[in-house]
Amino acid sequence: MSESNSVLIGRKPVMNYVLACITLFHSGSKEVSIKARGRAISRAVDVVEITRRRFLPDVKIQKIDIGTEQLQVEGGASTNVSTIEITLTR
Amino acid sequence: MSESNSVLIGRKPVMNYVLACITLFHSGSKEVSIKARGRAISRAVDVVEITRRRFLPDVKIQKIDIGTEQLQVEGGASTNVSTIEITLTR
Repeated sequence: MSESNSVLIGRKPVMNYVLACITLFHSGSKEVSIKARGRAISRAVDVVEITRRRFLPDVKIQKIDIGTEQLQVEGGASTNVSTIEITLTR
Repeated sequence: MSESNSVLIGRKPVMNYVLACITLFHSGSKEVSIKARGRAISRAVDVVEITRRRFLPDVKIQKIDIGTEQLQVEGGASTNVSTIEITLTR
């Protein structure tokens, strides 16, 4: 079964997201993708590193993609924000 | 000539680093690697995205590596910091 699950990184403490990843893998997911935008990108990398190094050493980084998203800001103007998606497999 | 050059991302404005990348490519580099630690990781992704999308569309992302470095803090304790290295080629 190829099941894909994702964890969107926001402003909560890093360990909340680490726990979310661990829970997904423990519930049988073979693939988990960690997504973040803007300043949460550094936190996404922290989540991946802590998950792999401290808790699930058999998890591998399959792919890292970066990109740009256009956000609509109030007033109708648009701004660009960087994105990252890190795919982990077990 | 396979020349490798790197740009270390710190706390300066994003465009300073974008300009550093463009200058390296314009001076003949075929490969430029952008490195950052901790909270500068998001800025490193911004630098890569702006360089590629706005200025040098022929530049490709060859590789993205993430890792962990141990830092020695004052008092002798050590702390972990996440790192990223994005390799661009032209």
